[in-house]
Amino acid sequence: MKFEPKSDTYKKKVKESFERQEFMKLINAQLIDVRPGYCEIHVPYHSSLTQQHGFFHAGIISTIADNAAGYAGFSLMEENSSVLTVEFKINLMAPGDGELLIGKSNVLKNGRTLTICTSEVFISKNGVEKLCAAAQLTLIELKNSSDQK
Amino acid sequence: MKFEPKSDTYKKKVKESFERQEFMKLINAQLIDVRPGYCEIHVPYHSSLTQQHGFFHAGIISTIADNAAGYAGFSLMEENSSVLTVEFKINLMAPGDGELLIGKSNVLKNGRTLTICTSEVFISKNGVEKLCAAAQLTLIELKNSSDQK
Amino acid sequence: MKFEPKSDTYKKKVKESFERQEFMKLINAQLIDVRPGYCEIHVPYHSSLTQQHGFFHAGIISTIADNAAGYAGFSLMEENSSVLTVEFKINLMAPGDGELLIGKSNVLKNGRTLTICTSEVFISKNGVEKLCAAAQLTLIELKNSSDQK
Amino acid sequence: MKFEPKSDTYKKKVKESFERQEFMKLINAQLIDVRPGYCEIHVPYHSSLTQQHGFFHAGIISTIADNAAGYAGFSLMEENSSVLTVEFKINLMAPGDGELLIGKSNVLKNGRTLTICTSEVFISKNGVEKLCAAAQLTLIELKNSSDQK
Repeated sequence: MKFEPKSDTYKKKVKESFERQEFMKLINAQLIDVRPGYCEIHVPYHSSLTQQHGFFHAGIISTIADNAAGYAGFSLMEENSSVLTVEFKINLMAPGDGELLIGKSNVLKNGRTLTICTSEVFISKNGVEKLCAAAQLTLIELKNSSDQK
Repeated sequence: MKFEPKSDTYKKKVKESFERQEFMKLINAQLIDVRPGYCEIHVPYHSSLTQQHGFFHAGIISTIADNAAGYAGFSLMEENSSVLTVEFKINLMAPGDGELLIGKSNVLKNGRTLTICTSEVFISKNGVEKLCAAAQLTLIELKNSSDQK
Repeated sequence: MKFEPKSDTYKKKVKESFERQEFMKLINAQLIDVRPGYCEIHVPYHSSLTQQHGFFHAGIISTIADNAAGYAGFSLMEENSSVLTVEFKINLMAPGDGELLIGKSNVLKNGRTLTICTSEVFISKNGVEKLCAAAQLTLIELKNSSDQK
Repeated sequence: MKFEPKSDTYKKKVKESFERQEFMKLINAQLIDVRPGYCEIHVPYHSSLTQQHGFFHAGIISTIADNAAGYAGFSLMEENSSVLTVEFKINLMAPGDGELLIGKSNVLKNGRTLTICTSEVFISKNGVEKLCAAAQLTLIELKNSSDQK
C-alpha cells in the first residue's frame, strides 16, 4: 500500500521521538528506516537482552514489534499529533536465537482516529533471516498533543 | 481458581528460571510472589525504561505482563518441562506514569499442552495503584525440555 | 467496578439496538441482562449452529463474546452515540458442547473515545456451567451517530 | 510461502469437514478454494446476517476469518488429525457494507503442534473489494482425532 504523509517533517518527527525514548538507548535499538506508513528497527544481540535460554527475550521482540508499528503509524499523522498504542497481539513463532533482531512494520489502515499496523520481527543468524514473530496493532492519534514531556 | 502444582519444587524452579533471564536484571525486575497459578513481578521506575513522555515504555509493560504469565503458568507445569509464550494480546489503558510497575498474572486454564493466563499491570504513583494494562496469553508446555541454555 | 450511565434510557437503547440485529434473530440469541457496564446474552443449542463435531460453532461463541461486549460498552455511552467494535481477541478453551451458551461481558475501562471490555462465554451442559471462551475487546464510541440504518 | 500437504486427500478432507458444519449452511457460506496452506470462503449478503445498520454482522465477519484459517491450516495437517482454533484476534476496519463477504486465509507457520494463520476479509460492493477485517489466528493439530461426531 502507498501512503501520503500529512507532514513534510515526518522523518524528523519520528527520528526525534525515537531519540527521546530512553529505553531504546538501553537496549541499543537502531532506527534503520522510516517511510510513509513503514518503519524498521534493529536490535543487535547482547547478553543483557536474553531470557533463560540465552535468546532474545520475548519482551524485546514485543518492544520492537510495537515500536516499529508506533513509528510506522506516526509517520502518517499530523504535524501536531502524538501517538499511543491502544493494544497489540503478537505470535512468537521461533526463538530469538541469532545476532540481530529486525522489526518491520507496515500500516494496514490509517483512519482519522485509529491506525492499524502489522509488524514482523525477523531473527538473523549467520546472515540468514527467519520469521520470529508477527503482530497486529491498533494505534490512536492524539491531535494537538505533544510528543514530549 | 485454585490449582495444585504438579511439582514440589515449583517455587524454586520459577525463581531459578527468573534469575537466568538477564533481561530481568537489566530492567531491575523483581519476582515478588509465586503461588500455584499466580505470579507477581515489580519494576521500579528508572529513566532508562521510558518512552518519549518519560513514562514506562510499553515494551516494559508488555514484558512484565508476559513474564508474570509465563511464570504463573510455569508454576503448574511438570518438573522437567519448560515453557514458551505462544502469543499474547495486551490493551494499554493508562500511561505508565508512576514510580512502580506491578504485574500480576493468573492462570485461567491449565491444559495438557496449552495454558491460558490473564495479566494485569498496575502503575503505582504516590502509593495509588491504577490499572495500566490487561493482557490475555497462551503458553505452551514443552515436556522433557530444559529451561537452561 | 461500578459505572454510572450517561443516559437514563441506556436499557431501552441497548434493547432496541439488539432487536435491530437480524443476525441475533437468526441464531435465536436472547438479551438476558443489561446493567451499566455489563451485558449478558444467551443462545440455546440448535443443530443449525454447529461445527463438524456437533458443538456450538466458534463463530457463534465469538459472536456472543463480541455482542455482549458491544452492549456492555454501549450501556455507558451518550444518548446520541453509536458503537463499533474496533478489535477483539478470543481464546477458545473448551468445546461448545452443551445446551446453552452464556455470554457475559464487563467494561474494564470506559474512556472518552475507546472502551475496553472483557467477555466470558460459558457452556451449560446438564445444568453445569463451564468456561468455554474468554475475550478482550476494544470498542469505539461514535458521537452523534445513529444506531439505525 | 509454499507448503507441501502431508496428505493426498487434503482437499476432500477439508470439503467434507466444511459440509459437516451446519452453521455454514445456515449462513450460506461457500468454500471457494482450498490449496496447501490457503483457503477462501464467501458469504453472499442476506438480511438475516446483519447488525443494526443493515451491514454484515461482526460475528459473520469473524466466523469466516476463523473458518478460512481453520481450513487453511487443516489442509496441511496429517490424514488422521483434526483441528481446533486455540485463539484469534481480529481488527474490524470497515463496515461489512456490500453484497459479498470474502474470507482468505494463509498459513504463516505450520508447526508440529501449532499452526499460525493470517486471514483477510474483504467486502465487495458493486464489484469493488475493500479490506474489511484482518485477523491473526493460532490453531492446534489434534493427532489421531476424528473430525466427525
